[in-house]
Amino acid sequence: MRGAGGPIGVFDSGIGGLTVYKALRDALPPAERLVYLGDTARVPYGTRSDATVVRYALEGGRFLARRGIKALVVACNTMSALALDELRAAMGRPVVGVIDPGVEAACRATKGGVIGVIGTAATVKSGAYPRAIARRRPEARVVARACPLFVPLAEEGWVDNEVTRATARVYLGDMRGAGIDTLVLGCTHYPLLKTVIGETVGPAVVLVDSAAATAAAARSLLADSGLLAPDGGDGGTAPGGAGDHFFVTDSSERFHEVGARFLGRRLGRLELVDLLE
Amino acid sequence: MRGAGGPIGVFDSGIGGLTVYKALRDALPPAERLVYLGDTARVPYGTRSDATVVRYALEGGRFLARRGIKALVVACNTMSALALDELRAAMGRPVVGVIDPGVEAACRATKGGVIGVIGTAATVKSGAYPRAIARRRPEARVVARACPLFVPLAEEGWVDNEVTRATARVYLGDMRGAGIDTLVLGCTHYPLLKTVIGETVGPAVVLVDSAAATAAAARSLLADSGLLAPDGGDGGTAPGGAGDHFFVTDSSERFHEVGARFLGRRLGRLELVDLLE
Repeated sequence: MRGAGGPIGVFDSGIGGLTVYKALRDALPPAERLVYLGDTARVPYGTRSDATVVRYALEGGRFLARRGIKALVVACNTMSALALDELRAAMGRPVVGVIDPGVEAACRATKGGVIGVIGTAATVKSGAYPRAIARRRPEARVVARACPLFVPLAEEGWVDNEVTRATARVYLGDMRGAGIDTLVLGCTHYPLLKTVIGETVGPAVVLVDSAAATAAAARSLLADSGLLAPDGGDGGTAPGGAGDHFFVTDSSERFHEVGARFLGRRLGRLELVDLLE
Repeated sequence: MRGAGGPIGVFDSGIGGLTVYKALRDALPPAERLVYLGDTARVPYGTRSDATVVRYALEGGRFLARRGIKALVVACNTMSALALDELRAAMGRPVVGVIDPGVEAACRATKGGVIGVIGTAATVKSGAYPRAIARRRPEARVVARACPLFVPLAEEGWVDNEVTRATARVYLGDMRGAGIDTLVLGCTHYPLLKTVIGETVGPAVVLVDSAAATAAAARSLLADSGLLAPDGGDGGTAPGGAGDHFFVTDSSERFHEVGARFLGRRLGRLELVDLLE
């Protein structure tokens, strides 16, 4: 049994969403099948305009709908900030973004009520994080900062060198003085730079990576919707993830390599697709 | 009179090609009209696969062909490295890239015959520069290095700070020891970082920016093809560039702002388009 109604879609602008895929694999019954879409031919989304992010989100969402997914996990902060309502309206099935779960984790973690948020230019400009925090803790103060260079640094593999430390000082130097005790890593790439980010803001600040919180939220929503496969299941001897399918819009070579680093194992089936076909 | 057969197309993956646009405006008769296309919804091309770069190049080329251009200047090194033959075959009109003009300028500049080339990952991987240099100076030695972070640094406006200097040391530190006397800036963004790049490789190294050389090559090819408007012309009192048209695939706001910085004046007509319509 594979869970009612087809696989679960996981949609990211590129490769960073594999952190969310991994957390989902850990949180969901092995019988659940996942299909992952990374729009690697058009990544990054975080520097595009709102209208373009919404258009790309709907094109990817429709592609996954044609693959028969029963629910969608949007593993990209920029899309979650700018296109979640549009995706919900268009998909007609449960949709989970990364922002609300991350915000809930941050609101639980903060003691002093001063929360830092870092993300792409588009995510920060959208104001989605401060709005979501204000709904839960109206008294909290939010310090938000766009860190556009963190994505190319992570992609370059410079996760802990002189350049990355200097960049973190420029972006985050004044966060320390602002009195934050919690920092939301509001972009799927940023957990790769966790060491440098943590050193820069200091050991007293809790770093919130929304991947695990998002996976837990997705599990709850599937269960509440009667769509979750039974735990244990009867998926035979195959480990969870053996039947998963990965779609990318640009060449698969680099995705294979970086993906294996993210997951600690080889990816399963990987296929190059055109979203507009 | 506007020159025989329509405007001249200038095609870049984004905003960097405005350096080539500017050089063309300086080199061409004021009566020539230019149409610029920046594929800002899919920039950067330099991290994509060969097949995707070729596909994007042909889509942009066809878009400009539908606008009736008489010749095409490919203002992007990555496209010039990977898709020039395909564009020439598809366009059926004169096509000029940035690599051959830059290589000619470098081969004239070098005394010792050791030439450095920096560019995007795709440009360097293609081997287009070493091949073009070998055709002109088979005895020359080429030291090539991909510098992926230079593009996001230039886009972030960090043209001369601690991070940019540290990045340049990582990428270019060993170029100095390699004995180069000439360095080709093989990406339209890199001239913005000229100061830091020059300091890192040392004052004895000549930096070659291919924009001016490309504009001169385009002028020659137009003249040889009988397509060049007469100098002075009878374009009335309008200054060169007043009738130019700019197309972008993502929102025009940022393009306006950065474009004005590149050109030292406001852009003319700017229009958001979909290449696939």
